[in-house]
Amino acid sequence: MITILPLAGVPEVRAGDDLATLVHEAVAQSRATRIEPGDVVVVTSKVVSKALGLLGSNDVERADLVLQESQRVVAERTTSTGFTRVVEAKAGPVMAGAGIDSSNADDDVRLLLPHEPDAEAASLHGRLADVAGHADFAVVLSDTSGRAWRSGLTDFALGTHGLTPLEDLRGLADTHGHDLAVTVRNIADEVAAAADLVKGKLDRVPVAVVRGLDRRFLHPDADGSRTLVRSGPTDWFALGRAEAVRDALGVPAGSAMSVEVGIESVHPETVTDRVRRAWSAAVLPDPAGEDAALDGADEEWSVTCADPYVLGRIAARFEVALAGERLVAELTPNPGSVRVGIAQPRH
Amino acid sequence: MITILPLAGVPEVRAGDDLATLVHEAVAQSRATRIEPGDVVVVTSKVVSKALGLLGSNDVERADLVLQESQRVVAERTTSTGFTRVVEAKAGPVMAGAGIDSSNADDDVRLLLPHEPDAEAASLHGRLADVAGHADFAVVLSDTSGRAWRSGLTDFALGTHGLTPLEDLRGLADTHGHDLAVTVRNIADEVAAAADLVKGKLDRVPVAVVRGLDRRFLHPDADGSRTLVRSGPTDWFALGRAEAVRDALGVPAGSAMSVEVGIESVHPETVTDRVRRAWSAAVLPDPAGEDAALDGADEEWSVTCADPYVLGRIAARFEVALAGERLVAELTPNPGSVRVGIAQPRH
Repeated sequence: MITILPLAGVPEVRAGDDLATLVHEAVAQSRATRIEPGDVVVVTSKVVSKALGLLGSNDVERADLVLQESQRVVAERTTSTGFTRVVEAKAGPVMAGAGIDSSNADDDVRLLLPHEPDAEAASLHGRLADVAGHADFAVVLSDTSGRAWRSGLTDFALGTHGLTPLEDLRGLADTHGHDLAVTVRNIADEVAAAADLVKGKLDRVPVAVVRGLDRRFLHPDADGSRTLVRSGPTDWFALGRAEAVRDALGVPAGSAMSVEVGIESVHPETVTDRVRRAWSAAVLPDPAGEDAALDGADEEWSVTCADPYVLGRIAARFEVALAGERLVAELTPNPGSVRVGIAQPRH
Repeated sequence: MITILPLAGVPEVRAGDDLATLVHEAVAQSRATRIEPGDVVVVTSKVVSKALGLLGSNDVERADLVLQESQRVVAERTTSTGFTRVVEAKAGPVMAGAGIDSSNADDDVRLLLPHEPDAEAASLHGRLADVAGHADFAVVLSDTSGRAWRSGLTDFALGTHGLTPLEDLRGLADTHGHDLAVTVRNIADEVAAAADLVKGKLDRVPVAVVRGLDRRFLHPDADGSRTLVRSGPTDWFALGRAEAVRDALGVPAGSAMSVEVGIESVHPETVTDRVRRAWSAAVLPDPAGEDAALDGADEEWSVTCADPYVLGRIAARFEVALAGERLVAELTPNPGSVRVGIAQPRH
């Protein structure tokens, strides 16, 4: 049996606060009464960032702040207030807006994530161990993010100390000989999600204690949650659908070129908007693009270029870019020009 | 405070078993003792599929069975034993292998997911209510899946009845005026993840009771979990990185054309393997491709074609396809041919 205890007694955290003492006092005042052997203390990363005073400058545009806190951009859209970007954050995970948080904070305060969340979890664990009188517990820094192909946000483990993030059952698979070969459980994210059920933004419960977790998941030398971040060649979703096509045309997400080409809006757009953006993606990154011209409107367009090699090249790039915009093109080549008919958008 | 109670007393489930009675008896034998008002009964979809007898034919290749259980293919790789595909399953969610499960089952038994998991959750809820004597509880069918950009698998809500899947805080955002505008919590997935902490494949604990969840999350007429599936225009990750580029060239994931072109392997491949596959993606979907030829090896290749328009077209498609293979190409056009130099792979 597992119990999840909310700690409601944590006061508003300010830069320089001793978070370990605040958490320890909140534990003492709660039904948890003390940190017991085997407990997992799940702390919302927001209060860690507040205690560390990790504030983004107000002199920087929010979109630029997101890029500053990012290793790379995975996907991007234009919104009413600027750009929304899903990025691989310097804090580790892939998430929207690099995890920069302006909620539940004073006006114009932008809380940044720690860049080394496992180290912060270890530091908090050490200081909590001092006041708790023992070190037989784990610490999870939780944060909130969307999950691809799912609506809504769930909590996940941004940083951990003392908790085995992955339960690797692969060594145990042979007795069945089946799919357990791929069964590696992400325990840390499940603990963070469980803790969120008693936390929540509006209740101001930034800490929860998860008690009764199987002892095999606790280990003082366990890897941190950085190991949970899947990036590089094993990541099949390194770029969004639109971004993958644009990248292949030479328009990397998060670049000045991408802004110049134009970034798809979350709001409805006309076919002409999409066609013109596809044209920009086809010609702007390509020096030969200067020699080609687009004319037309709605579903009827024409590409002209005197050089047949360049015409073929640009028409092909345009067709690919249109597909990236979920538009189906039918190309009819003629000497010096290509007629481009656009069929209705695909989804 | 939330408690999560494992139900270890569920016997091996067989086709035709009355799952509600089995669950009810297991609750009675456990520390939960009875289904209390406000409880959430989380049942592993596997036992639901077993009770329903949802078995895939052994006369069908596993890869074909996955396609049969899919609405569309999102990403695909070649593995040692065939293809691994991430699909939008007929059961609703996007997941690997359409959620077909061969683990913890008899040899050669392939358990399929119910296509209407919310309806199965509702049905189980109704039958459990009969034996429990009240209907003031929720049912979650949980399943296991990877999460993009994260290692390891976590449980999520495949189907629900009586549980509010999303906690929409957007109406409450105005008092802060900040990021709560996008704060919609996926409660159902967090409940499923929490329950998994006491379940697990090896322990044969297919059911857990989550007790003490905030009553605002329980509602008899709540939407099912189908509403949690994000698909269509708001899905920024409708195709994997490689698949997005191939799709834009006319090679849809999951198609016979994709198999003919060749599908990237999870194992290491040579640059020449990747170049030849990129060439196939460039020319096979395109009638004009018959007029062009590729020659070369390793990092030095040449595309030849007598028609300059077709040469430009195919060279551009080849360059895009190479980028989809994470290869950077440098093209040098000459009359009748294009020299293509390949730089080292990008990741």
